[in-house]
Amino acid sequence: MDQRHDQIEGNSEPSHSFGQVSHLALDIGGTLIKVVYFSTSRDDCIDHEGDSSANNTLGVSKSGKHILEGRLHFAKFETRNINDCLEFISSKKLHLGGFQRCRNLAKDKNLIKATGGGAHKFAELFREKLGIDLDKEDEMDCLVAGANFLLKAVHREAYTYVGGEKEFMQIDQNDLYPYLLVNIGSGVSMIKVDGDGKFERVSGTNVGGGTFWGLGRLLTKCKSFDELLELSYRGNNRVIDMLVGDIYGGMDYSKIGLSSTTIASSFGKAVSDYKELEDYKPEDVARSLLRMISNNIGQIAYLNALQFGLKRIFFGGFFIQGQPYTMDTISVAVHFWSKGEAKAMFLRHEGFLGALGAYVSYAKNRLDDLVCNESIQIPVSASYAADPKYNPRNADLNDNESMQCSVYTA
Amino acid sequence: MDQRHDQIEGNSEPSHSFGQVSHLALDIGGTLIKVVYFSTSRDDCIDHEGDSSANNTLGVSKSGKHILEGRLHFAKFETRNINDCLEFISSKKLHLGGFQRCRNLAKDKNLIKATGGGAHKFAELFREKLGIDLDKEDEMDCLVAGANFLLKAVHREAYTYVGGEKEFMQIDQNDLYPYLLVNIGSGVSMIKVDGDGKFERVSGTNVGGGTFWGLGRLLTKCKSFDELLELSYRGNNRVIDMLVGDIYGGMDYSKIGLSSTTIASSFGKAVSDYKELEDYKPEDVARSLLRMISNNIGQIAYLNALQFGLKRIFFGGFFIQGQPYTMDTISVAVHFWSKGEAKAMFLRHEGFLGALGAYVSYAKNRLDDLVCNESIQIPVSASYAADPKYNPRNADLNDNESMQCSVYTA
Repeated sequence: MDQRHDQIEGNSEPSHSFGQVSHLALDIGGTLIKVVYFSTSRDDCIDHEGDSSANNTLGVSKSGKHILEGRLHFAKFETRNINDCLEFISSKKLHLGGFQRCRNLAKDKNLIKATGGGAHKFAELFREKLGIDLDKEDEMDCLVAGANFLLKAVHREAYTYVGGEKEFMQIDQNDLYPYLLVNIGSGVSMIKVDGDGKFERVSGTNVGGGTFWGLGRLLTKCKSFDELLELSYRGNNRVIDMLVGDIYGGMDYSKIGLSSTTIASSFGKAVSDYKELEDYKPEDVARSLLRMISNNIGQIAYLNALQFGLKRIFFGGFFIQGQPYTMDTISVAVHFWSKGEAKAMFLRHEGFLGALGAYVSYAKNRLDDLVCNESIQIPVSASYAADPKYNPRNADLNDNESMQCSVYTA
Repeated sequence: MDQRHDQIEGNSEPSHSFGQVSHLALDIGGTLIKVVYFSTSRDDCIDHEGDSSANNTLGVSKSGKHILEGRLHFAKFETRNINDCLEFISSKKLHLGGFQRCRNLAKDKNLIKATGGGAHKFAELFREKLGIDLDKEDEMDCLVAGANFLLKAVHREAYTYVGGEKEFMQIDQNDLYPYLLVNIGSGVSMIKVDGDGKFERVSGTNVGGGTFWGLGRLLTKCKSFDELLELSYRGNNRVIDMLVGDIYGGMDYSKIGLSSTTIASSFGKAVSDYKELEDYKPEDVARSLLRMISNNIGQIAYLNALQFGLKRIFFGGFFIQGQPYTMDTISVAVHFWSKGEAKAMFLRHEGFLGALGAYVSYAKNRLDDLVCNESIQIPVSASYAADPKYNPRNADLNDNESMQCSVYTA
């Protein structure tokens, strides 16, 4: 499967009504580029300059601010295929900023919010190819801002995953902090969040999504992250993992609380089997790898939560992708190690924390002339539009998805 | 290279003077069998029954106890080649117990101390092939007893590894506890040790020596653990690991203290390189794997030491093998995460903690009639015999090695 092509096709025929665009924001990671942008409905902009009508896209809130109704859109690309991302932005004119064309042309219209290491690495490329300057926002700032945005503004965003079931949690805004944010991108960052803009990156690990994908590619020859996830969904890790029972002749090691089915050593059976890589099924290899990495992240997250007395751990980042097995392993690890004291929670828009953080940073900086005196506030009425049923290939992938959203303008 | 053959050859021509043997003890793990046994010098036993002569092997201590001079021997075998181990024991008559033949034949002469899961799994095999019963000792009990034995009794046993240099530490016996013992076998156990026989297994991870060897075999096709280690010694992990600088265009992410050379994602470059496994050098793959696992264990160990306020972490288990790069990575991880507060320490006989623990458990149980009324005390005069210079293939492997040792007999 050619993911590059998939991405383009998927994005070139959007199912939503597509109008003016503003606030393109980018999170350019080591492996993926995440894109967020806002659009109003088609043909609703030019005629409503300054208008206020409850029936139109641009309305007026009780506080007297203008409300722009529309949708937040999400897309992602592989960083190694960055040209696809540039084409996508160019073809949709995302970089030109819809509002400017509606209202007045801002002199700084070519300044686009971007975060992630690629905002530094590829700044020159964006200038050359699209004529835009990347306005760099700190990566951790954006992750936290994105997570706080989702947790406060978006209905049915956070959920636990227990026994194969998602349970959505309504987070009490007064009881949100402190929490541990674990963002699993190529690597993993663990951030203690104490409030809006109040946080500390307390830990991390280099065993993350890039490790799963990278090692997985080498071991299974699969062509994409989705394919690797699908493989893992069908595999059996016990073929390659050494279980406690494999060492103890089928017995538990009950004295220290290890059952015979506990994994003693990931990939440990590959030592004693007289087998080569080709003799194992790729799906079993993928499964062992996914379990190893998910479990490891869950454990390190728990140990950090314990250190700081945090009861809630939110897991984000592209690695998770709403994958049941990933979430189950992480949830079980946190539950096991914390003896039920700490809880793993997941976010529907897990992969877009950084990009959303960059998006809401337009408001922070009050770039009035850029965005036509508009300042974004958290769209409290935002609701999530789609609820795709689980599908191993496309489960909650969140690319090409969008959510309904109101933007308040000054 | 056929390690099985190596093992047999190495063990079949011992360089030491070989006499009567007693106290065979086994640690049968998921991947390796570790063997410890004591021997007096050749031809020194039968004539000295009850004798006391300072010039003979059997002397008398100041306390009036008999002292038997001899050597502790160490050997290891792959668990999948358990028949080699049985042959070795049989050919050397280790299972018959030298002292019994010297003094009086004990009715329980066929009871041999053994620990590790294989003491359960292979009990029947030992009974069938050698006519011996394995007297099972708990694995954690043995690891702790073995570590305490080494730390108290053996000169120049514990050392730190900083900047490529071993620094031996004389441990103050009154300031030994508490410490964290991290045993890296197929899997990893982390044990908080508070005294002799006083301990708790507080954590562990399934990413251990079996993972390194198992994944390493699949990725590099190498035939043995030593070969894999040698490969890693020659490799460069930056070829496959995604560094912070790879994401940030060569820059540090200094705001959160990550330099451009920090590994952001182990194996992360394998995502974006258009390369197959065959396109990477096996030594680079081995190096990345070793670094990933060493770093991960160091981090989890530190987090546990932090939780319990432990300043000293002793690392044991066959994974380490005195390998400079392994020890360096673990040391740096502990130093980095603890900001210099905690210290990683290593043990010369790292791979034999469990077997040594099983060995000293002969004394614990006072199996008087089995071992001719002999009770073992810690041989305070024990000293380590050899000091091999570093050699990537055989560095401190400790198999086929021995140490001088005195056994006190009642």
